[in-house]
Amino acid sequence: MSNITIIGTGNMGTAIAKILTDGGATVESISHSDEPTSFAGDIVILAVPYTALPEITDKYRSQLAGKTVVDITNTVDFATFTPVEFDAGSGAADLAAKLPESTVLKAFNTNLAPTLATKTVGDRTTTVIIAGDDADAKAQLSAALTAGGVNAVDAGPLARARELEAVGYLQMGLVINGQMNWTDALGIIK
Amino acid sequence: MSNITIIGTGNMGTAIAKILTDGGATVESISHSDEPTSFAGDIVILAVPYTALPEITDKYRSQLAGKTVVDITNTVDFATFTPVEFDAGSGAADLAAKLPESTVLKAFNTNLAPTLATKTVGDRTTTVIIAGDDADAKAQLSAALTAGGVNAVDAGPLARARELEAVGYLQMGLVINGQMNWTDALGIIK
Repeated sequence: MSNITIIGTGNMGTAIAKILTDGGATVESISHSDEPTSFAGDIVILAVPYTALPEITDKYRSQLAGKTVVDITNTVDFATFTPVEFDAGSGAADLAAKLPESTVLKAFNTNLAPTLATKTVGDRTTTVIIAGDDADAKAQLSAALTAGGVNAVDAGPLARARELEAVGYLQMGLVINGQMNWTDALGIIK
Repeated sequence: MSNITIIGTGNMGTAIAKILTDGGATVESISHSDEPTSFAGDIVILAVPYTALPEITDKYRSQLAGKTVVDITNTVDFATFTPVEFDAGSGAADLAAKLPESTVLKAFNTNLAPTLATKTVGDRTTTVIIAGDDADAKAQLSAALTAGGVNAVDAGPLARARELEAVGYLQMGLVINGQMNWTDALGIIK
């Protein structure tokens, strides 16, 4: 069974923790403000706003070494509602560059929190889209998620985080402009 | 009723023509190789690969002036399967810069052809996502589409074409890697 730490206890962190616990994973939930000194999980999910990532990478680089680190952020400047540009191509690639001894995955950023909390979008099961360069790490997260009652889809290498972040931004705009609800999804329909 | 020209008679052009005809629009379908000298439609849909756009903009700039021009392309280098980079931010913005007297919309690029041909994704009605800076042009295309039996959603200004092109690229990769079928969609689920 997976041993997973979730940093962040907001809507996203809480909903992700529930799914993983339902699937039998051992989940350690830590508030971003708890100032932890170590993480029990082999997988550490950073369920925080992207603005909190620099502090986390500075403070916990060594504690995150050797672990799978999952970036769920939407890299949007909420003051101007414009996407943040990264020389690395995406927020996740930027994070990976700052955590060279960790295996970074992008996941959950295309899921609105209510669809993770209920595990459904309308009458469909919620699908989590994952990108990353390490097949084993993706398979481990996928297995933990499917055990918890949602679908998981592999979008390919971490370079695809750029497109996943675009989906997240587009989706937020559609919700804000009333074209979608928070309980809907810009996701895979079969 | 709308008067619409579609340049391109492939899977996409054919499916779009059927929807618009079903909705009562007067549709002129022109093969890309027909070398037309004028276009009957107030809306001209360029249902061609993005590699055909430079020739069209060079040749028909004056004929397209004053019209709504719809870019449906996925801006992917199919030799390397990598997204094409545009200084303008998206292929649609690049097209708009080359057609300064036309009103450019991005639409249909997030729809796989089979979902336009059947108007459905599974048990759901297919949704066409549209971006553009001219509200009237978007409303006219939306009305023609909804009359034809599909849903239309306004994704905002033409700047959102960047995200729509990312969705199109991501979706193609998911299909190619067996995570989705051509009859599925990366789209809005309610």
